[in-house]
Amino acid sequence: MDFGTDFKPVTVQPQEIEGLSFQMITAELGEHSFSSLEYPIVQRIIHASADFELGRSLIFHPRAIEAGINAILQGKPIIADVRMVEAGIAKERIQRYGGEVRVHISDPDVMEEANALGTTRAIIATRKACAQAPGGIYVIGNAPTALLELIRLVKEGKAQPGLVIGMPVGFVSAAESKEELRKLDIPYITNIGRKGGSTIVVAAVNALSLLAVRRAAGELG
Amino acid sequence: MDFGTDFKPVTVQPQEIEGLSFQMITAELGEHSFSSLEYPIVQRIIHASADFELGRSLIFHPRAIEAGINAILQGKPIIADVRMVEAGIAKERIQRYGGEVRVHISDPDVMEEANALGTTRAIIATRKACAQAPGGIYVIGNAPTALLELIRLVKEGKAQPGLVIGMPVGFVSAAESKEELRKLDIPYITNIGRKGGSTIVVAAVNALSLLAVRRAAGELG
Repeated sequence: MDFGTDFKPVTVQPQEIEGLSFQMITAELGEHSFSSLEYPIVQRIIHASADFELGRSLIFHPRAIEAGINAILQGKPIIADVRMVEAGIAKERIQRYGGEVRVHISDPDVMEEANALGTTRAIIATRKACAQAPGGIYVIGNAPTALLELIRLVKEGKAQPGLVIGMPVGFVSAAESKEELRKLDIPYITNIGRKGGSTIVVAAVNALSLLAVRRAAGELG
Repeated sequence: MDFGTDFKPVTVQPQEIEGLSFQMITAELGEHSFSSLEYPIVQRIIHASADFELGRSLIFHPRAIEAGINAILQGKPIIADVRMVEAGIAKERIQRYGGEVRVHISDPDVMEEANALGTTRAIIATRKACAQAPGGIYVIGNAPTALLELIRLVKEGKAQPGLVIGMPVGFVSAAESKEELRKLDIPYITNIGRKGGSTIVVAAVNALSLLAVRRAAGELG
């Protein structure tokens, strides 16, 4: 095979590749029961993972999409669990409405307090975020301890997230933390099982902010 | 379920969770034909994805691990395809030996040249990296066009990567770009199929730098 100037994939533009990928995903996924506003999230997560099993395992609280769109359009902050998630989120569509993306896991005060209390930085970072950002979108793709702490704070009335995107990946406590999230009657996007991770939750946020832009433009009714 | 102070997962330390996860992965993976130096990479990728199918799809060039360890210990740069990959790489173990992590996708000169030539930023960023970083570790988890361009430059004798970690995720050209990579006789870590992504290649780099630390400490023989 010769990669000359006529080798097609090299000259195809990213937007064309994305459109073609989305068509392939829709064809291959076949029947599903996601709503028309949930489906763009599912589609972008499959696009980011090439994993249909993961796509089919997604669970949306009935108010999740509306709550997420509203939080973005009201300029509420997005709280990422790790810097990799922060790096992946498309900032312009968040900042356009006055929002910003925050990540507290490496804040000096968080590291100090976690050391002093002998607990994880993820837990202390969650407490800090909840104190500072009521109504924000909490995005957790890694530490189950962060999600469990957020659930605890919600139950105690100490946190009022606008939306929780909770899909920690892993073998210890990840699936269980998502089960606990699904018992709450607050807006959430999650999935069943061990899978998840930074790229998955980033895909969810970026799909959601595209919906927010369409809502702001009057395209979603 | 009550998340009091005696709720176990909240008080388990991250290192313990990781060790337990790795034991579960080894038990569940069962028989495999990876070498003792390849297996830590496989294990960490499964840890980051909870995806055994992806783990089993990994392919290592025979010189991949040695080449990667040597590149790190010689302080060669690591070139990430996107900022999310850069964000996820454990920097301290790279910087310890004089190396650094670079990402060119948003460099002003790259954006300008891509616009001028009507091609993708990923391609121009790859050209820039190859001109500046012979012997570096190229880490591609996203754009197949970046991997295809790197392959083209290698074939033309214009790039001499120390190691290529090439696992772009996606539906268009991703699997095909990895097939082309596997035809080269240069050190690579890749996989068969559509899966991959930022978290996957980050896991590979971070597992590799742990091996480099062990080699430096005389633990790997």
